[in-house]
This record gives sequence, structure tokens and C-alpha cells, in this order.
Amino acid sequence: MKISPLAPTSFPNMPTVKGVDIKTYATRDANKNRDNLLLVSFVEGTKVAGVFTKSKTRSAAVDWCKNHLSTGHDARALIVNSGNSNAFTGKAGVKTVNDVVAYLANKLSLDATQIYTSSTGVIGELLPASKLINAIEENKVTAAKNAYVAAAAAIMTTDTFAKYTSKQVQIDGETISINIIAKGSGMIAPDMATMLSYVFTDAKVSQAALQQILNSATQKSFNSITVDSDTSTSDTVMLFATGAARMVEITDASNPKLKEFSAAIHEVCLEMAHQIVKDGEGAQKFIKIQVSDAVSDKSAHIIGLSIANSPLVKTAIAGEDANWGRIIMAIGKAGEEADRDLIEISIGGIKITDNGQVVDGYDETPVALHMKKQYIDIDVGLGLGNGQATIYTCDLTHGYIEINADYRS
Amino acid sequence: MKISPLAPTSFPNMPTVKGVDIKTYATRDANKNRDNLLLVSFVEGTKVAGVFTKSKTRSAAVDWCKNHLSTGHDARALIVNSGNSNAFTGKAGVKTVNDVVAYLANKLSLDATQIYTSSTGVIGELLPASKLINAIEENKVTAAKNAYVAAAAAIMTTDTFAKYTSKQVQIDGETISINIIAKGSGMIAPDMATMLSYVFTDAKVSQAALQQILNSATQKSFNSITVDSDTSTSDTVMLFATGAARMVEITDASNPKLKEFSAAIHEVCLEMAHQIVKDGEGAQKFIKIQVSDAVSDKSAHIIGLSIANSPLVKTAIAGEDANWGRIIMAIGKAGEEADRDLIEISIGGIKITDNGQVVDGYDETPVALHMKKQYIDIDVGLGLGNGQATIYTCDLTHGYIEINADYRS
Repeated sequence: MKISPLAPTSFPNMPTVKGVDIKTYATRDANKNRDNLLLVSFVEGTKVAGVFTKSKTRSAAVDWCKNHLSTGHDARALIVNSGNSNAFTGKAGVKTVNDVVAYLANKLSLDATQIYTSSTGVIGELLPASKLINAIEENKVTAAKNAYVAAAAAIMTTDTFAKYTSKQVQIDGETISINIIAKGSGMIAPDMATMLSYVFTDAKVSQAALQQILNSATQKSFNSITVDSDTSTSDTVMLFATGAARMVEITDASNPKLKEFSAAIHEVCLEMAHQIVKDGEGAQKFIKIQVSDAVSDKSAHIIGLSIANSPLVKTAIAGEDANWGRIIMAIGKAGEEADRDLIEISIGGIKITDNGQVVDGYDETPVALHMKKQYIDIDVGLGLGNGQATIYTCDLTHGYIEINADYRS
Repeated sequence: MKISPLAPTSFPNMPTVKGVDIKTYATRDANKNRDNLLLVSFVEGTKVAGVFTKSKTRSAAVDWCKNHLSTGHDARALIVNSGNSNAFTGKAGVKTVNDVVAYLANKLSLDATQIYTSSTGVIGELLPASKLINAIEENKVTAAKNAYVAAAAAIMTTDTFAKYTSKQVQIDGETISINIIAKGSGMIAPDMATMLSYVFTDAKVSQAALQQILNSATQKSFNSITVDSDTSTSDTVMLFATGAARMVEITDASNPKLKEFSAAIHEVCLEMAHQIVKDGEGAQKFIKIQVSDAVSDKSAHIIGLSIANSPLVKTAIAGEDANWGRIIMAIGKAGEEADRDLIEISIGGIKITDNGQVVDGYDETPVALHMKKQYIDIDVGLGLGNGQATIYTCDLTHGYIEINADYRS
């Protein structure tokens, strides 16, 4: 598959995160030369926070993680396979999760409640536990230049590039590493969650504080992107903090010592969210939609998503057509408060509408030039209040149809 | 433009509706050989009912119709232009509506409140009243074989065929004609309304009864279709009853004498809704989604629309891929009550899932054969209650991208 034209041209080096050990494997049916199974081990005392899909048909793996996260146990292992989501596989799917976890608990001398698991890929096909277990037993670990790059590659499905980034911050004079990996390209319309993404840090932070930081970071990153309005059955973001760095545990998310750390978690989540959009199925353009002056942030968010999910807006942008009337349509259909005569729309920083109609002497030339760029900026002012939101999406192209009219076969 | 492969192969003859007079015109900028302006006159005493878009950015024409319908005045004229929706045209757009209506009121010796108007086409471009007035003044009426066919053709935009049908019923021994025309192909996700559709009958029925019959008919027809999840700024359905037939006025919608009439209104609305889906932009397949055993009819409706609007479901069907996992995903994301372990999905009458997983010994062969057909049937049972809904949609193909990445230019 051709790499997305929006793929980042450079990636940061991924430092070591103390207390994290990464292995990747290939199942027997995996595409040759490609690992599709990730196993991460954590030192004792690793805290974990998570955010999951709200789908009513979520996968057995998501159910497992949600249930165990709430017990507050430490995390000692994470296993993720790609190619089969083990979603809508009924009791057999639940058994697969139980069997894989029991196998790992025995092999690694852990308690089952310390093990987290995700699956991503086709929905509705049975995933035998033996497939994953055999891959680990055969133990053909691939030598990877960097474990995190290998990890990011192992969880890909229709992704055209591996998604990862890293930040380092200082806490109490100690360098703390934050590494993140993610996958996602289609079925992207996270509902309080995302496709798969995992953050690894050696910071020593309590579970409650981690969860609070992750919730906040998720809202403005993974929850603010959409590729195709379709919400996955497997969406998962997890944040693992090994506590292996030399620092005293911080238990309060609002502790000033965590300010830089929280900001870095926000940043890496946003970078992953952007990389997912940039690898949106068939994407040729990255679109940033800023909605301001709505009655509330929530209202701005809904209006932004209505624009970002509109097939007519997305195809107009694919066609490099400054057809802003479709943005008006998408605002109108959102069901949120809007006053036609107060809406201001700008594209590429050029104001197009004002007072409920096109501005006097509107010249489309500079807007048409902006539409030819790879990065499209849309600003919508509603003139009603102080609510604002930024949503990221991509265009809807022939590539999306090509990929999805024949993904499974 | 090539006619949709799903276009009906035959259309009924359109009888005369007593009290209705139809003319079509071409504005100066119209495509050659194509009328784009419809003017319908009604006899005194014509009652009118209407249902309109709930869009917050609806057009000036929709505002006009909504306001005047609520006064209960008789309808004496309807003017509709295609090519420019006069939506988001601010005060200038309101002035255009006022000027056109004032012109017609003067020309036809009517009160402005007796005149209804719609516009459909590009959003945000000014529509000068003179454009419509000149077309009528120049009076180059095209000789049409059938006035209703000409009327249906005059309101088309990206439609590939003119949409109309007819029914006749008996009331008190008198033959009552019901003719309907509609347009619509993209931006189809009616929200308590539809694209443009007009029903003409010579029945003598009170305004209140007509409105009740139309509301009910709209819910299971125009409100149960979607092409692309995008709701138009101009959606309008109106029902004009001239009362010119020899019958005593019926004022109660539940009067048994109206039973056949109400059923016929339902039928013609449903037929128009189907024709709109069959002319869905790029459509190759007509998809019927029946949702049953939901907690309520409303819940079934929302779940049906979630499936019908899912780009991944629509592209799978375009690719003739029996990828039912995407239906599971779309049920899950709908936000409605669903129990993964009770969902039953059938495609083409063949049961695929049961007890939250694929049925024992599932053989995809007959399902794959069904996917190759032009008419796709999807049945979803939720196992929760008695709620049901039927939603109609089409597949998402390269044709949709082709049409919409370059519609305006």
C-alpha cells in the first residue's frame, strides 16, 4: 500500500522508558515480513489509566480492560494483536480473551487482573487463542532497530505508516520519558476514546492522577478527530506509568510538578491524533476546523464534527472546490444553536461570509489557491457565546472507496 | 449525465388534477433545452399542508412557506426554481422572495400570503428576483407532453431522472387524483422533511386534516431515507388539495372516507422517497434496512439510519462484500440501547448472527450472491422490544465522489 501523502517526513527518536520491555511476534497467518502481535511487559508497581469506546457492540478485549481497570490493580503486561478485532464473537470471543490472559499469567507468573489486551482488525471472525499463544511459543522475535517503532508497526491494519512520537520532561530534576504509539486509518470517529493508542512513561504518578490527565488529554486530541464518522468497536487509549524513574510518587493531578508532564501527555496524544487523520483512508488533505463563539464548547464540538463528517464538505475539499455553502449546510444540520445571520466563515484566513451572506466584493481567487494546499483551514464564528472547539479531519476521495469497497477480501 | 441504473423502467400516466394549472419556464442562464422554473396555479379554496427542513441555516423560501402555512390561508400559486437555492443569501435572499411573490401577486391578482415558493441548487449565491420574473415575462412556455413530467423535470438539479407518480382513489363515488413530483439526489438526510416534493390532489379536505395526513406519510417515507447523511437547507414537502372534485369537504383526518386517500398519500410519498434513493448520487444499489425488536420505533429509526449512513457499510455494499461486521459497528455507534448478545443480522433473508456471534456453520456463499444483486435487504433484530423502522438508502461509490468533488464548477 502506498504511504499517505500526508505522512510525517520525520519522526523523533524513541528513548528508553524505564520499566518497559517490548516484544513483537508474527502469527502463522500474518503477512510475511510483518509482525502483528505486540507484547509489552511492565515492572512491578506500574499504574495504568484507560479510555475506551462507548460502542454498544464493543469487543471482548475492551470489556476485559474496562472491568480490570476499575479494580485499580497494577498493570504488568499488555498484549495487542492486529488483523482480527475479536469483536462480535460472542462467548467464544470472551473465552479467547480469558485463555490468552491465563496463558500469559502462567508464563509470566502474574495475576490475570494485571494483564491488559486489545485486538484490532476484521469484526465478527473468531480469533482462536492458540493463534496468539503459538506465535509467542514459537518465539520468533524480530530484531527491530527500535522497539517502539516495531510496536507501532505491529498494531497496524489499513495504516500506511507506523504512528509514534515521544517527549521528555523534567520532574524533580529527573528526566521522564513519554513514548506513545497509535494505529488507526478508517472507522475513525472516536466517542470519548479512539482507535488503539498506548502511552508509556516511567513517571511515578498515582492511578487516579493518571486517569484524570488522560481523560483531559483525550478530549482535545483523539475525541476531536474524525475520518469517516464510523466509531470502532475496539477504540482504546491506555497510559502506563512504570514509576521506574527516581521520583517520589505524585498523587494529585493538579500538583504543579505535573504541569509539564500533563502538557506533554496532551501534546503526544494530539500528535498521534493528527497522525491518524494524516493516515485517514484515502486522505489527500488535512483539514483543521476551528469553531468559535458557540453557545458552549460542547456545541462548538458538535458543529465542528458535523462539518468534518459531512461527505459533501469532504468531497468538495477533495475536489479543491471552495464550496463554502456546504459548510453552511453542515452547520444547519448539526441540531445546535445557530443564527444564520451571525455566521462568519473563513477559509485559509480569508473571510467569506458575514451578516448571513457572502461578504461584499467577495473574491474567490485567494480561497481557491488555499484549496489547492495540503493543509486546509476552516474557521467558523457563530457570534453567540464563548464556546469553541477544534476538530481535525481529512478529505473524502476515491482512495477511501477503493480501500473500503474491498477491505476484507 | 448518465441515468441512474436504479431508475424505474416505467412511470405511470399522470392524470389531470382538477383545479391545478402547470407552466414551466427557462431562465436565461438555464442549460439549453431545459426548463428550470415551475409555476403552478390553483383554484380558489385550495388547502395546503407542508413539512420543512429543521436545518438552522434553512433558506429564505423555506422561512416564507413556514410562516404563511401557519396562517391557514388558501394556496393559489407555487413557484419553484432549480439551480440556485437562495439559501444563506441574507437580507438579499429575503428580498428576492418578497419581490418574486409581490410580482406574482400583482400579475395573478392574488394576496402574497396565498403564494408559496421553493428554491433548490447551489447554496450562498445571490438569486436576483429579475431572473425568475424575466423568465415568466418572456413567457417561452415549453410545450410538454405531460405537464407533471415537465414540472418534475424543471425542479431537477443533480437528478438523473424526473421523479413523479400518481394514484387515483374513490371518495363518495368520485374519482380523486393524487399526483406527486419530487427532486433529490444528494444532500439527502431529511430531518422531519425531505428534498423538494409536491403532492397535488383535487380532494376536498380541510387544512388540519391534510397536515395530519402529510405528517404521518412523511415520517415513513421521506424521513426514512438517506443518501449521504447531509441535510438540505431547502427540504420541503407540500400537499395541495384544490377541492375541485365533487365531494363534500372532509375535516377529520380519521374519517373512514379518507382511509383510501391517506393510504394513497402514504404510497405516493414512499414511491417518491424510493425514487430519490434510486437516484442517489453515484448509486448502484438500493438498500432496504429493516430494524425490529428495538426498545422503541424511534430507537429502531436511529439505529437504521446509523447503518444507512455508515460510509463503511455503504462502501462494503458498493464492493459487493458481505462484511456484516460493519453493520455491528454501526449498531454499536448509534448510541441506542443494544445488547451485543441478542443481535440477529440477516442479509438477503439469510441469518448470519445469533446469540452475539456468527451462526454455527455459516456459509457465506448465498449471502455473497445476494450482495451481487441490485436490491440489498438487511434485517436487524435487537431482541429487546417491539420497536421497528424501515430505512432506505443506496451504496457509496466512486460516482458520489466524482459528482461531488466537482459539482459547483
